[in-house]
This record gives sequence, structure tokens and C-alpha cells, in this order.
Amino acid sequence: MDKTAFYDLSYGVYLCTSWDEGKPVGCVANSAMQITSQPATIAVSLNKNNYTHKAVSESGHFALTVLGEGADPALIGTFGFRTSQEFDKFAQTPYAVRGKLPVPDGGVAWFSCKVVSTMDTSTHTVFLGEVLDCGKLAKDAPMTYSYYHRVLKGKTAKNAPTYQAEEPAPAAPAPAEAKWVCSVCGYVYDGETPFEELPDSWTCPRCGVGKEFFKKQ
Amino acid sequence: MDKTAFYDLSYGVYLCTSWDEGKPVGCVANSAMQITSQPATIAVSLNKNNYTHKAVSESGHFALTVLGEGADPALIGTFGFRTSQEFDKFAQTPYAVRGKLPVPDGGVAWFSCKVVSTMDTSTHTVFLGEVLDCGKLAKDAPMTYSYYHRVLKGKTAKNAPTYQAEEPAPAAPAPAEAKWVCSVCGYVYDGETPFEELPDSWTCPRCGVGKEFFKKQ
Repeated sequence: MDKTAFYDLSYGVYLCTSWDEGKPVGCVANSAMQITSQPATIAVSLNKNNYTHKAVSESGHFALTVLGEGADPALIGTFGFRTSQEFDKFAQTPYAVRGKLPVPDGGVAWFSCKVVSTMDTSTHTVFLGEVLDCGKLAKDAPMTYSYYHRVLKGKTAKNAPTYQAEEPAPAAPAPAEAKWVCSVCGYVYDGETPFEELPDSWTCPRCGVGKEFFKKQ
Repeated sequence: MDKTAFYDLSYGVYLCTSWDEGKPVGCVANSAMQITSQPATIAVSLNKNNYTHKAVSESGHFALTVLGEGADPALIGTFGFRTSQEFDKFAQTPYAVRGKLPVPDGGVAWFSCKVVSTMDTSTHTVFLGEVLDCGKLAKDAPMTYSYYHRVLKGKTAKNAPTYQAEEPAPAAPAPAEAKWVCSVCGYVYDGETPFEELPDSWTCPRCGVGKEFFKKQ
């Protein structure tokens, strides 16, 4: 079995959001697809360890926001590499309630869905959602997962369905070439100013988290 | 509900194949995605009117072949716009048996899957398949559905989950501008030789079917 074959499956990059006892929560999803148009129905696969999985299960509703190629990397950093259980992802993410669900600003299209069926696997649940409402937000080209990896050099979150196939082991750097690496999104700092001398207000240019998320490797 | 939002969902272009009483059958699928990697599992959505749906249901197995950007358009014409019930799609399509399933030549990767679960909708069934084996066939970039529409000017088959959203009504041509149009893939003949004078051996440059599939519009 040559698992590099999995690299050839094509996906988009989405934010899947819902309500958790009245508070907005969400995560990055890449496994989402339309199933039928009679009525319009979308399936999304969520890891059972994602806090958003609990919110979608309990509320019976989810929204999908399609990210465009020009999406703010902070959206992926915030929604893809942190958990809503410990961190209020919407505290720093403007959003609007669309189709009765929280839809973060910065996407190109959105869908609000009502769960009508589920399919269980060992690690993920496939939620089948009837689309209650949807709309366009911008004309930017939709971001594909391939674009995210190839152009943005993005990493795969450990809860993603594709985690196993997408994550080649990084080469260990020589001690003399120690780097500061963002533990949230994998960005490697390569600025001229020594990392230790950056101001406390400095944030990761890819995902927007602060200096405290960087580790020396 | 602005249904143009559905254009922003990203997909690949796949051939979904199986055995029907010992004979290979198949169709084009675009709604396919990995669900989990423990064990590696792929979901594919097939229209109940597709003959391949019957074969996958009865045999409990399917293969997915990932098409690359350089795929022969005849593969899409043959597998996407004709039915295995009336037409032997493999008669003119070389294939190999990989992972015990028929895999047409001309793809970039393949997966052979055993159905472990299904999810029903009004028009489509989502088949959840555990990947038994998979491999790479070529290094060509995988074709996205967007690429198929944008670059190849491809049409959407009526059984596709995305049919409703993807098919804007064509403008009616003026009688004086009558065109010969391929009824299989929608290609409009625009050569200098009058269509009626083309040799009988001439075939559609997009999908490979013969002159008899063209209609005057």
C-alpha cells in the first residue's frame, strides 16, 4: 500500500462552526462535500476529539465557511490548531450570524446546515447536513488543501482525517542551526532580528499567535 | 439561498469502478473524501440511478482512480456520460486489476476499498470504504473539478451531486448559427470543414465518441 496515493485526493479548506450552549465554537475541516441537490445536502467529517464535534452532535446544526486563497492565515491557526474547550476562538475573530449559525468573517461562501444523518467511524463522525441557507461573501478563488500545503506551506492538524498521510517526519536540525518554530502552525522564524529580541507584541506571521507559542528546536 | 455558493466547494475528479457479475463497470465521481486514517477509509457518493451504484451495493467493493490534469478526456466522456447498463465502458478502456478491482489506465493514483458502511439520501448513497490497497500511477497533478470546468470547459453529468448548482442554462443559439453539439459531453464543433463532410471515423476531440452522438442545435 503506497499511502502517498492519499496526497492525490482533492479537498477544500473550510471552517466548521456551531453553537455550544450559546457560545460560538468551530474548527478547520477539509473533508466536506455535497452529497445531493434534492434537497441540497453536504457531508462533513469531524474528529471525535474536536470540541466542535460535541457542539454539532448536541445542537444538530453546523455552518461551513469556505476559505479563499487570500484567507488570513490567522483563521487557520486559530481554528485549526487550538481547541474551543480551552480557547475562545471567536474572541479575536469577527463573525456574523448567518442562517442562525456563527459564520467567521473572511470566507468566500457559507452554508448553514441541519444534521439529518450521521455515519460513525473509529475516529470521525460523518455528519450529513441539509443546507438551510447559503451565500457568497467574496469572489476570491476557493483555497484547496493542495494550495494550502504547496503555496502556504501549511501543516496538517493531528485531528484531520488526512493526518497520517500528510505529515512527513521533519529532518532534525543540527544543534548549531537551532530555530524558533511556531508550535501552532509550524512556521519557522527566519527574521534578521534575533527571536529573543522581538517585542512581546510580535505575532506569528502565518497564524497570528504570540511569541509564547514558539519553541526552540 | 444563493446556490452559487456551491461552486466554491472543492473536489477532485475520480472514476469509481467495481465488478458487475464478473464484468468491470464504472462511472465518474467527484464527491469522494478520506474520512479517517485509522484504518484508512474513503467515502464516495454515488447516484442511485448509476449502474455502478448497483454493482458497488451488490459486490461490496469499489475502486477509485484519481484522474490527473492530463487525463484523456475520453475517460470522462465514456465514464461520465454513458451508462454501463447499455455500453461496455471497458471495451475501449485498457485497465488492470489492482487490489482485486478493475482500475482503468490513465489515472495518477488508485484505491481499492471494501464497503463497511453506507448512508442513504433521497438520490445518492454515501459508501464508506475501508482502503484495502492503494498506489500511485503517475506524477501528473490531480485534476480538480474546478480545473475540469475552468480549463477543460467540461459539463456536469445529470447524476452528479452537484448537477443543480453547476449547470447554468445555455443561451439559445439563433437559427442562423446552428451548431453541431456533442450530446455526450457538450463539445461544440467549430472546425472549418462542414460537420457533414467530416469522415465517419472522426471522433469528438473532448470525449472520444463518434459523429452519431452529435446533434444539430
